[in-house]
Amino acid sequence: MKRVNIALLGMGRIGKIHFKNIEQHFPGAKIAAVADPLYDISLKEKYSNIFFSKDANEVIALPGVDAILICTPTSSHADLIEKGIQNKKHIFCEKPMDLSLERTDALSSMAEDAGVKLMLGFNRRFDPDFMQAYKSVRGGTIGDIQIVKITSRDPGLPPIDYIKNSGGLFMDMAIHDFDMARYIMGKEVVEVYAKGLNIIDKKVGEAGDIDTALTTLTFEDGTYAVIDNSRKAAYGYDQRLEIFGNEGMIQVENNLHNRNVLYNEKGIHHALPLDFFMDRYAKSYLNEMELFIDALTGDKEMPAGGADGLKATQIAYAAKMSMENGRPVKLSEVKVKAKEIA
Amino acid sequence: MKRVNIALLGMGRIGKIHFKNIEQHFPGAKIAAVADPLYDISLKEKYSNIFFSKDANEVIALPGVDAILICTPTSSHADLIEKGIQNKKHIFCEKPMDLSLERTDALSSMAEDAGVKLMLGFNRRFDPDFMQAYKSVRGGTIGDIQIVKITSRDPGLPPIDYIKNSGGLFMDMAIHDFDMARYIMGKEVVEVYAKGLNIIDKKVGEAGDIDTALTTLTFEDGTYAVIDNSRKAAYGYDQRLEIFGNEGMIQVENNLHNRNVLYNEKGIHHALPLDFFMDRYAKSYLNEMELFIDALTGDKEMPAGGADGLKATQIAYAAKMSMENGRPVKLSEVKVKAKEIA
Amino acid sequence: MKRVNIALLGMGRIGKIHFKNIEQHFPGAKIAAVADPLYDISLKEKYSNIFFSKDANEVIALPGVDAILICTPTSSHADLIEKGIQNKKHIFCEKPMDLSLERTDALSSMAEDAGVKLMLGFNRRFDPDFMQAYKSVRGGTIGDIQIVKITSRDPGLPPIDYIKNSGGLFMDMAIHDFDMARYIMGKEVVEVYAKGLNIIDKKVGEAGDIDTALTTLTFEDGTYAVIDNSRKAAYGYDQRLEIFGNEGMIQVENNLHNRNVLYNEKGIHHALPLDFFMDRYAKSYLNEMELFIDALTGDKEMPAGGADGLKATQIAYAAKMSMENGRPVKLSEVKVKAKEIA
Amino acid sequence: MKRVNIALLGMGRIGKIHFKNIEQHFPGAKIAAVADPLYDISLKEKYSNIFFSKDANEVIALPGVDAILICTPTSSHADLIEKGIQNKKHIFCEKPMDLSLERTDALSSMAEDAGVKLMLGFNRRFDPDFMQAYKSVRGGTIGDIQIVKITSRDPGLPPIDYIKNSGGLFMDMAIHDFDMARYIMGKEVVEVYAKGLNIIDKKVGEAGDIDTALTTLTFEDGTYAVIDNSRKAAYGYDQRLEIFGNEGMIQVENNLHNRNVLYNEKGIHHALPLDFFMDRYAKSYLNEMELFIDALTGDKEMPAGGADGLKATQIAYAAKMSMENGRPVKLSEVKVKAKEIA
Repeated sequence: MKRVNIALLGMGRIGKIHFKNIEQHFPGAKIAAVADPLYDISLKEKYSNIFFSKDANEVIALPGVDAILICTPTSSHADLIEKGIQNKKHIFCEKPMDLSLERTDALSSMAEDAGVKLMLGFNRRFDPDFMQAYKSVRGGTIGDIQIVKITSRDPGLPPIDYIKNSGGLFMDMAIHDFDMARYIMGKEVVEVYAKGLNIIDKKVGEAGDIDTALTTLTFEDGTYAVIDNSRKAAYGYDQRLEIFGNEGMIQVENNLHNRNVLYNEKGIHHALPLDFFMDRYAKSYLNEMELFIDALTGDKEMPAGGADGLKATQIAYAAKMSMENGRPVKLSEVKVKAKEIA
Repeated sequence: MKRVNIALLGMGRIGKIHFKNIEQHFPGAKIAAVADPLYDISLKEKYSNIFFSKDANEVIALPGVDAILICTPTSSHADLIEKGIQNKKHIFCEKPMDLSLERTDALSSMAEDAGVKLMLGFNRRFDPDFMQAYKSVRGGTIGDIQIVKITSRDPGLPPIDYIKNSGGLFMDMAIHDFDMARYIMGKEVVEVYAKGLNIIDKKVGEAGDIDTALTTLTFEDGTYAVIDNSRKAAYGYDQRLEIFGNEGMIQVENNLHNRNVLYNEKGIHHALPLDFFMDRYAKSYLNEMELFIDALTGDKEMPAGGADGLKATQIAYAAKMSMENGRPVKLSEVKVKAKEIA
Repeated sequence: MKRVNIALLGMGRIGKIHFKNIEQHFPGAKIAAVADPLYDISLKEKYSNIFFSKDANEVIALPGVDAILICTPTSSHADLIEKGIQNKKHIFCEKPMDLSLERTDALSSMAEDAGVKLMLGFNRRFDPDFMQAYKSVRGGTIGDIQIVKITSRDPGLPPIDYIKNSGGLFMDMAIHDFDMARYIMGKEVVEVYAKGLNIIDKKVGEAGDIDTALTTLTFEDGTYAVIDNSRKAAYGYDQRLEIFGNEGMIQVENNLHNRNVLYNEKGIHHALPLDFFMDRYAKSYLNEMELFIDALTGDKEMPAGGADGLKATQIAYAAKMSMENGRPVKLSEVKVKAKEIA
Repeated sequence: MKRVNIALLGMGRIGKIHFKNIEQHFPGAKIAAVADPLYDISLKEKYSNIFFSKDANEVIALPGVDAILICTPTSSHADLIEKGIQNKKHIFCEKPMDLSLERTDALSSMAEDAGVKLMLGFNRRFDPDFMQAYKSVRGGTIGDIQIVKITSRDPGLPPIDYIKNSGGLFMDMAIHDFDMARYIMGKEVVEVYAKGLNIIDKKVGEAGDIDTALTTLTFEDGTYAVIDNSRKAAYGYDQRLEIFGNEGMIQVENNLHNRNVLYNEKGIHHALPLDFFMDRYAKSYLNEMELFIDALTGDKEMPAGGADGLKATQIAYAAKMSMENGRPVKLSEVKVKAKEIA
């Protein structure tokens, strides 16, 4: 079987994870090229069969490359996706496709029209525990879903410079949870009500963002999801899910550092949740790459495609608009007003 | 020490709990009289030193009675409270004081003006676990509270006739959670956003009520609480609390039927939560009566007074108004418009 | 229905529990008399319908007394049981009946011959969680039991004077666990292997006792139970049970002070187990008294009778003998050699 | 840095795990050769730079090989270790070195004399949770250890043919737990008392083995460990540890398949423990190989060497002897009588 040739664009934190995973775990694929303006020169020696470049465009154009992995800063995503589509390369892109709703929309359509497969790195979907929850729910284990509750709290503030270019909490962080809510519900969101606060660090507010948020999503049948986000939980990365149906409830609890319990005169103590996303979602990155490669080599669909990216982005826009206007916002408003609010 | 003479009005489910608790646990108080149109005649023989009557008014007027316990149907609460105040009897009343916001307001003021102590049966406040959470929070264990999340689900629908006279889910059921949110937060609510659904049983909708709700409360400093209610959880009575602060989080989990864990080929199984309120809040009823009696015999304040009842009722009104209007409602609107929406 | 008249002998810690429970919870029984050399004189005034005496013998002889509750120090148990039997009073006695195996045997037979009902205060049997485990096991939930593991650790050393008169750890403390093992297994012990250590406080060793023990019981069919005891667990009273069968396992975990969980930067923290026996086994005392009164008023058998007391005492003897001889001891040896080792 | 050349002997279940781990995770080492009488010929094509042979001896003798990994059936371990020592290869060997205590002793000494590093695959030592427990204990978290309790139950019977050649439950299965008890305690065992049963399947008994066991180990200072083993737990692989010290307790609980909790009308349900050792101890195999390679390339000691293997084997012998003789057996007896009982 021919191995799929993948070009990796961006060798930052997340790019390195994908690089290592593909090298170690997927005999059906190989890293054929890497583009990063600052790539480590020693890698070139170590991986002599990989083409290294400082220019992503050069790499995308390589004829032997079947697919590209976009792990560059958000601001470059859209151009690289577009270039990938033009070169008929299949695409895996870290979320979001773009901060602009219009461009996101355009890229999603463009990929579809060109027959290019596009997958977005909504890593939570590929976490084994959430996958199991999804499977249980679809299997009818708890009947019809009535409410989904997502707790999603980071262990600490990112650098303020990161925040400035992030598109804001809803676009940068909550977007994962918006996608998760849609994914679990299997229905579309029609209305969003969001509240946001800047109570962790004033610098966040000065950078024009919030650090704490509460979002209510209403789905087409009137059921809802509620998501609470914080940029900083004192006890670490808190990623939980609760799905309440008419026949039962499923909770996905945090995965802890270990299964050890200490009893002493002060109480009974368990370990903290796994550290930030690289630790907590280590298996998600493996799983998502497996599904991407499977879709590349077979007839399978990409599990989180352009349309999903667009929907999550719309919700993020609606959330921001709701917060700013102090009222629930219909998703249909966002579609119409996309130009104005962008 | 003189024992406090208490007249019990209403010998239904909850009246019987208070009767038994006072008889068994509080040497400082005694049931001096019982009024119930349908009281069990055998009780009269068994408790020969208690005065039994079918007429609450007769009992309230008894000179030897120090305080009354109102456990009658909601529709009679207001008149009995008023009669109690007129007779200078201290009052313990199951929530709510009245379905009308205006009357609730009036009664609250009337009691205060008359120097009559008034306590409301917000039983959750007196649950040992919630009390411990309150104490931890006030002691600064988790720093400043950023968000409170309350899960409050009943094990099954009440009779439709009950629902018809209940004042609706927000007034009948969620009012406990509104009070709990204020209690834990130690701050006042300024805005309410609520959504409601009728997805459990059509008859509820036909009776003009909802059976599922999600309410967001915004407090004076911008922080918030989110409450989800359901009239029917397949797994029983679900009463949980999560308090997230800048230095940590406190969760109050359900109290289960037992501490037994069964491991078999299908999984690892724990017992269900304690049954409905008479079981789950058994200790709350004891604790609240102890505090009531303490306040009667000493200088202590009633721990959940008329002003608390009024606030919770205002929030319930705002929630209903928000749901019906599809927008967040300021508590100040409710105060002004109380007459119109009643 | 005639109320059963009970005479309470001994108003110490445990006597007070039974007194309060009977007064508050059992309309079918009443405390008719109390004997305690140091009884609180104010009680006499408060409970004018109860006969108070400093002399247990006087009280046992009262014609109106149906049953006696022996809550005096261990050294007086045997004489009081004997006196009770002579006076044809039914008997509830805190364990053990006597430190001497021979006398225990004699008393057990004497009660049976006289048709006097005798129940021993093996409180663990009546704990709701252990009762549920027993019920599950008998109902076949985990198939045939292969091993029972009991963890039984006290929160702190008793006074050395208490230890000196206690009969030793096996007789005083582990005897509860020996009874529990027999109860859960539903089979008889044939062999005992025990190890004991004095590692908590030298004074215990100087008083001729151990403070830490590990006992293996072998049952008639070769299956076994293992019990570990400690006089002092830093984290409090630890009372757990694990039953392993060919179709599953049941664990009874500790009942904690509350259901609150604190998350902070150091970990995830739960409350400690309920305090010592008066707290942990509060419901056991209620349950055992209910069963005692039920057996007195109806045809039911006493749930933990003289034969059970004798068996547990035999096991305690065998454990001590095993520890001293460094070898497994057959229960049959103990029966024969009772005289020598006493 | 020169990569360590490792020869893998035996490509069965466990050999494949090590093969994959070394290939994927350790840039400092490489599989230079593989010996297996039945090796998959397609591997030879895929891994053209690896030398494949059907003859372990041929591979051990290869001059370029630095170390050997013995993953062959138990009966061949001793000869291969000896051959490895003769060829001055460092050795990683799955437990046990040999069923004979004398030969185990001889091999342990031989390796030491020859300056050959020898490590045994006591995989539990390298499990992250047990490592954390070890670290906590050594760091004084719970003070002085008073008792260690190990629960070690397999999810199902191995084939009877496997059992026949296994050396018996104590040597094949409990040996891991004997090593763990020594490792956690940091002290030597002086006495063993063991009981064994054949209650799962008669065929086990017919093959001369037991399927259920309870072992008490007494350490040099009188403290003890108790280990219960079963070849078949209905709920899967049960691997727990409890360490009780004078200042607290550490429990290592099972690692479950997921962190999902299902609530329905029957109860609250968690997932089962991870499947058998290949799943449960996946990280142990990685960790042990890392430590082996570290010790090969640096000055570090092998973390579980020949002396540890010998001690665990002695304990297994003592356990068998104790079970057969119905009495506690001193480890010193085993040393002396090794010849006779072998």
